[in-house]
Amino acid sequence: MRKHIFNAGPCKLPDSTLENTAKAVMELGNCGQSIMEVSHRSKDFQLVFDEAVELFKELLNIPENYSVLFLGGGASTQFATIPFNFLKNKAAYVNTGTWSSGAIKEAKLFGEVEVIASSEDKGYTFYPQNFEVPADADYLHLTSNNTIRGTEFFEDKAYDVPVICDMSSDIMSRPVDVSKYAMIYGGCQKNLGAAGVTFVIINNDFAEKNLVADRVIPTMWKYTTHINKGSMNNTPPCINIFTVKETLKWVKANGGCAGMEKLAIERCDMLYAEMERNSMFRPVVEEGSRSRMNIPFVMAEGKEDLMQEFLDFSVSKNIVGIKGHRSVGGFRASTYNACTITEVEALVAAMKEFESMKA
Amino acid sequence: MRKHIFNAGPCKLPDSTLENTAKAVMELGNCGQSIMEVSHRSKDFQLVFDEAVELFKELLNIPENYSVLFLGGGASTQFATIPFNFLKNKAAYVNTGTWSSGAIKEAKLFGEVEVIASSEDKGYTFYPQNFEVPADADYLHLTSNNTIRGTEFFEDKAYDVPVICDMSSDIMSRPVDVSKYAMIYGGCQKNLGAAGVTFVIINNDFAEKNLVADRVIPTMWKYTTHINKGSMNNTPPCINIFTVKETLKWVKANGGCAGMEKLAIERCDMLYAEMERNSMFRPVVEEGSRSRMNIPFVMAEGKEDLMQEFLDFSVSKNIVGIKGHRSVGGFRASTYNACTITEVEALVAAMKEFESMKA
Repeated sequence: MRKHIFNAGPCKLPDSTLENTAKAVMELGNCGQSIMEVSHRSKDFQLVFDEAVELFKELLNIPENYSVLFLGGGASTQFATIPFNFLKNKAAYVNTGTWSSGAIKEAKLFGEVEVIASSEDKGYTFYPQNFEVPADADYLHLTSNNTIRGTEFFEDKAYDVPVICDMSSDIMSRPVDVSKYAMIYGGCQKNLGAAGVTFVIINNDFAEKNLVADRVIPTMWKYTTHINKGSMNNTPPCINIFTVKETLKWVKANGGCAGMEKLAIERCDMLYAEMERNSMFRPVVEEGSRSRMNIPFVMAEGKEDLMQEFLDFSVSKNIVGIKGHRSVGGFRASTYNACTITEVEALVAAMKEFESMKA
Repeated sequence: MRKHIFNAGPCKLPDSTLENTAKAVMELGNCGQSIMEVSHRSKDFQLVFDEAVELFKELLNIPENYSVLFLGGGASTQFATIPFNFLKNKAAYVNTGTWSSGAIKEAKLFGEVEVIASSEDKGYTFYPQNFEVPADADYLHLTSNNTIRGTEFFEDKAYDVPVICDMSSDIMSRPVDVSKYAMIYGGCQKNLGAAGVTFVIINNDFAEKNLVADRVIPTMWKYTTHINKGSMNNTPPCINIFTVKETLKWVKANGGCAGMEKLAIERCDMLYAEMERNSMFRPVVEEGSRSRMNIPFVMAEGKEDLMQEFLDFSVSKNIVGIKGHRSVGGFRASTYNACTITEVEALVAAMKEFESMKA
């Protein structure tokens, strides 16, 4: 029986992504070969690849002169590749949680890092606003959504320096003004498809002109390599890219990024309303900083010892994935693009039933 | 209709890999989630991961104190990661083709590279033997099989320095004495599964003790990170690892590496015998250096203008993938583990029929 999936990533994917991937694993179109067997240099695969890139560009309204890349290694690899390519003297970082901290740690290996804003002192429960960016920074690095802590920003702002943003966990969940960014990147395993492929949206001029000139950078760690080779300097993760193409088709058929945003707001409004109402639970993130993708919550004061009991109860209700990240504890409902209202209703119903059982 | 697949990678995979992957895309076991949805931190996925690692260790008889890692980025990323971790002063490389040359190019970014043997002057048509390795080299780098040129070595030798070998295209096609190597690596998309995952077999002591001490290395580019985190420092390519597990199950059920070697010899003996006999074709690689995985051939002297015609003829016979690599031309039949005798018979029959048509 199919579960109600609230995993933090890998996570729920659209039924059509599963069905069409399963079919392509047996045979891609009518080409007599599996998506796992067909050459990455063949027309059959190039069609898949081009459709994924074109859907990316269309759905995010990506301006001319940006490339969409599909790479390996995950966003964590990008944490180092970004400063390797672009950190000459100093970079500005906003620290909003585990992933920002990881990016900062790697950047420090390559140069000076100025953490211009942080929510660390309040347990990462809010998203810092109105920070000033030093004009001499090579770039500003942001993390739009914090999977573990459940904070998110929704406004794309221009700054005086190029902006690079990790959107691993909220890409395609709202319309984004890509022109405000020099680069947007992330793992695909939340809103876009199977784990194993990393997307990079990058301004071609930025990639070339801001490359640190006097640093020796290996071929596979240069963005310009992948821009020039259309992500095929070596064999790309073909089946993973196929799953992205399928998920983007589904996003398009469901109203594009605006449609995803509407659904995301509906889902998290339902969950936050229940958490505020239900005497057994409380949310942890400040209003105004609340993520639509990851909704952490804890037992209400005095109810802490019921945590494991609710976790077991949720499992009995066919719900998986609401245990909080091992670094913070509590609960977390991750409600990515493919999470349905039906699934949210199941979780809300479980919370209500648990409250009435314990009242 | 299923094709006779001779692709150079991605390539033919066992039917059971396709069927079981398609099933797991719909639901992994009975867990109510797709292999693409289940958390990489869940027991359901850990079982898949552990089975892949255990099969790797069992089939290659890997000694204690080696780790098997599953990473992203492909073998081309390893070309740089290896010298980044281990090249302090000088490394010795054997140049046997495009992939060796790529590895040499990246190593030169990190230190001195001594190319101690090369087959470049004879168009990479043989595998150099009996080279001397400088005792002060940090490591010796070999490429066991050359996909593009079709040369291969089959003997695992000890040298006075640690040996690192790219086995992307012949891993699991013969028993390997892993103890002779400090590290073996490669893309999985030929003998092991879907593109998008890189295997690394590494001696744990080597990874730790030979790490260049005074070099700053990003977290994701250190082998010790992945050894310590069991390849899960970040989200691994889950579905790709699943396909490796499935293919290794098939390898085991079909006689293990010894069974694969027997089949490989049978396949390439059939093909080489036909090339020697058939008046329309000739092989290009010297006897004694011939790969069992990639068999390049050309039209016989005076028949060169029939090349495209034979290519079209092969397509009409349901055969795909025999066009030579764009850098060398001619033909190439790639006969990896999952390539069946039936497929080889189809190609041999096409060669015979073409000869009789043109006689």
